[in-house]
Amino acid sequence: MLPFDIVEYQTRLKKTKERMEDKGIEVLLVSDPANMNYLTGYDAWSFYVHQMLVIIIDQPQPIWMGRYMDAGGARTKTWLYEENVIPYPDYYVNSSTHHPMDFIAQILTEIGQANRAIGVEMDNYYFSAKAFERLKANLPNATFKDADLLVNHVRLIKSDQEIEYMRRAARIAEQAMAKGTESIRAGVRECDTAAEIYYNMVSGTKEYGGDYPAIVPFLPSGENTGIPHLTWTDRPFQEGETVNIELAGCYKRYHVPLARTVSIGKPPSQIVNLTNIVVEALNDVLESVKPGMTCGEVDGVWKRNIKKYGIEKEARLGYSVGLNYPPDWGEHTASLRSGDLTILQPNMTFHMIPALWFERHGIEISETIRITEKGCETFTNFPRELIVREPFMINPPGGIIS
Amino acid sequence: MLPFDIVEYQTRLKKTKERMEDKGIEVLLVSDPANMNYLTGYDAWSFYVHQMLVIIIDQPQPIWMGRYMDAGGARTKTWLYEENVIPYPDYYVNSSTHHPMDFIAQILTEIGQANRAIGVEMDNYYFSAKAFERLKANLPNATFKDADLLVNHVRLIKSDQEIEYMRRAARIAEQAMAKGTESIRAGVRECDTAAEIYYNMVSGTKEYGGDYPAIVPFLPSGENTGIPHLTWTDRPFQEGETVNIELAGCYKRYHVPLARTVSIGKPPSQIVNLTNIVVEALNDVLESVKPGMTCGEVDGVWKRNIKKYGIEKEARLGYSVGLNYPPDWGEHTASLRSGDLTILQPNMTFHMIPALWFERHGIEISETIRITEKGCETFTNFPRELIVREPFMINPPGGIIS
Repeated sequence: MLPFDIVEYQTRLKKTKERMEDKGIEVLLVSDPANMNYLTGYDAWSFYVHQMLVIIIDQPQPIWMGRYMDAGGARTKTWLYEENVIPYPDYYVNSSTHHPMDFIAQILTEIGQANRAIGVEMDNYYFSAKAFERLKANLPNATFKDADLLVNHVRLIKSDQEIEYMRRAARIAEQAMAKGTESIRAGVRECDTAAEIYYNMVSGTKEYGGDYPAIVPFLPSGENTGIPHLTWTDRPFQEGETVNIELAGCYKRYHVPLARTVSIGKPPSQIVNLTNIVVEALNDVLESVKPGMTCGEVDGVWKRNIKKYGIEKEARLGYSVGLNYPPDWGEHTASLRSGDLTILQPNMTFHMIPALWFERHGIEISETIRITEKGCETFTNFPRELIVREPFMINPPGGIIS
Repeated sequence: MLPFDIVEYQTRLKKTKERMEDKGIEVLLVSDPANMNYLTGYDAWSFYVHQMLVIIIDQPQPIWMGRYMDAGGARTKTWLYEENVIPYPDYYVNSSTHHPMDFIAQILTEIGQANRAIGVEMDNYYFSAKAFERLKANLPNATFKDADLLVNHVRLIKSDQEIEYMRRAARIAEQAMAKGTESIRAGVRECDTAAEIYYNMVSGTKEYGGDYPAIVPFLPSGENTGIPHLTWTDRPFQEGETVNIELAGCYKRYHVPLARTVSIGKPPSQIVNLTNIVVEALNDVLESVKPGMTCGEVDGVWKRNIKKYGIEKEARLGYSVGLNYPPDWGEHTASLRSGDLTILQPNMTFHMIPALWFERHGIEISETIRITEKGCETFTNFPRELIVREPFMINPPGGIIS
C-alpha cells in the first residue's frame, strides 16, 4: 500500500534522471531520507545509520542499500524489486573499523559503476564528510559531482495527490493548534501544552492518523519569545506572558506548519501593535502572491509593508515546504527572500512565517500556502490574529492550576 | 539556570582538551548538538542549520557560531561570555551563494586560528561533506584531523548528576510504557497509542516535565514486528497480533530507552517461547555484567545463552546511551558486540536490547543499565515479561473500539 500510484513514482524518477542528464551525472547517490521516500516510498526511522538510494541513469529501478535489520522495510514497503535491496551487516554500524560507505563502494564496483560520474548530496545531514572521504578512497576512478538538492528541486512543484496529503496535514495542524492554545493558562507547564499538541498531532483526526513532524513544536514563552528555536521546559506559564506556538500537522511525511501567538490575559499594547502590523502585512502579501512572481518579489511586498512602521526583519519571510524528515521540514530550495529568483508556479507550497523577534519579546503568525493558477490559498483555516486566553480557568480540575 | 554546575562544564572541557592534546588538535570544531550541549549547556532545535562550537586549546572559553536568530539562546542559556557568541546573517541559510562554513572560516582566520591543527567531527550528521569542503577551501594553511567521537568518548562515563537525570527519564519511560500498553486493544489505531505514549513522554511526571526523545516511539504491529524502525500508521490493531514498543523517557536531553512486546489476546506459542528465551538470557546477562569486563564479553554471555536454543542475533546487543538529539539516542562509542574492547566502568550506561527479528514476527524486551561498582542496575522498574492485553475493552467509550 504505497501512498502514491506507481506511475507517480516513475514520473518522479524520470524527472530526476532528466536533471542527472543535464548535470552529466550517471549515478546519483541519494542520502536525504525525504528524497529516498519521494522516489521509492521508503519510510522508516533508519536514517540514523548510513543508507543510500542509488539511481543509475540507464537502469529502470533504483537500488536501496542500508542496514540488514532495515532491509525488510525496504523490500516490503517500496516498489523496488527484492533483489534491488542490498543490506550491509550490523558490524558496519558505529564501527571504528568498518564504514558503510566501504560496503556501498564495493557494491557499486561489483555492478560496474566505479568509473562513472557519481552525484552526491554534498550538503545533506545524512552525507557526512567521512562518507564522502570513504567513497572517494574506494572509488578512485569515479568522477564526483555535487548533486545537492537535485531531487529537492523536483519536489518543488507538488502533484495533486501531494496537495491532498498536505490538506489532511492542515486539518491536523488546526486541531493541534486549537487544543494546544486551549490548554494554555497561568500555572500550566509548558511541557503540558507541548504534550497536548503532540497528542493531537500524532493521533490526527478520526479520518487520518497523524505522523511525526520533522521538527518538534516550539512554544517559547515570556522572555524567551524572542528566541524562536528553544524547546519547552517544565516552567509554568505566568499571567501577562505571551507564548509563540509553531507546529506542523504531518500526514504521510507531508507538513503544513502553522504559528500563532497567545497572550495569557490582557495583551501588552506592544504585542497588539506588532500583531496588527504583521497581520496587515501578511494579508497584503497573501493578496499579492501570483504565479510568475519571483520569491524575492514576495519578500519585497512584505518588506515594503513593515517598513511603513519602521520595522525590518533580518530573517527570510519563508521557504518551500512539504515532504520531510528530521531535522527540518523546509525543503532547502526556494526561500522567500531578497534575491531569490525562483519563479512561483501553481502547486508550489511555502511556509510564510513573518515572525518578528526582539531582545525579550517576539510574535509569530504564519500561514502555509499553495500557489494557485491565479494567486495563492492557505492550507489552514485558523483565525489570523493574536489569541487571548483567560489567565485562569473558571472551574479548574485538581492539580493543574497554581 | 544551567542543568549542571559550572564546575561540571569546566571539567568536561578540561577532559576534552586533554584528548585534543593527545591527538595533536589545537582547535576543535564541534558540530554534534549533543557535544555542544555537553560542553556549554546550549539546547535548542537550531541544528537544522549549520552551527559550531569552537574549542581552542589555549583559550578558556569555547566560541559559539550559528544563525543570527539563534544567538539569543546561545547568549542567555549557556555559560559562554556574550562576546563568544558570533552569529552569521540569515542570508547564509539554505543559500546557493553563501555557505555558513565560509563565515566560520573567516572568523577563525580573523582570530588567528587559520594555521592550526583543526579537529572536525568527520562522521557526524551535522558536519556535511560540503561543510568540510568549504572549510578546507577557506583554510588552506590549516591541518585537518578527524576528531569524530572525541567528545562522545568523554561522555561515556556519566557524572552523578547525569545519572540522576537518567533516573528521572526512567520514571518518564515507565509511565509512557504503562499508559501506551494500556491503550492497546483490537480496533485502536497505532497512531492513537503513539499519541498516548507521546503525551506521557512530553508531559512527564508531576515533578519533572519530559523532553522530546531523539527517536520517535516505534510500535510495529502484526506482520511488521520483524521490521524494527517502521513508524506508526493509522491501521487499527487486530486481535491475536503482537506489538513491539520501543520508546525512551527523556529528561534534559538524557535518555532511558525501554522496549516491551505486547500481545493482543492470547499470545502465539512462538512468541511465548521467544519471550522465555530472551528474558532468561537477559537476566543472565544482567547478573553477569561487572566493571572490568569488555563490551564484547557482555555480548558473549548473551550469545551463549541464545545459542542453546539454536538462535543467533545478527545485530549488536546494545550501545552506550545518554545525552542526545535526533536522529539517534545512541552515543556511537561503545557497542555491546563481539570485538568491542571497551572496558566497563562504573557510571557507564547502555541500552541493552536483545531484540529478535524474523521475517514476519519479532520480539523486543530491553533494559537500560548503569554499570555499578560491583555489577549493574536497571534504570527502569518494569515487569520483564510479555505484556498480554485483553483484546477488547469491557466498557468501551464511544468510537474507539471497532
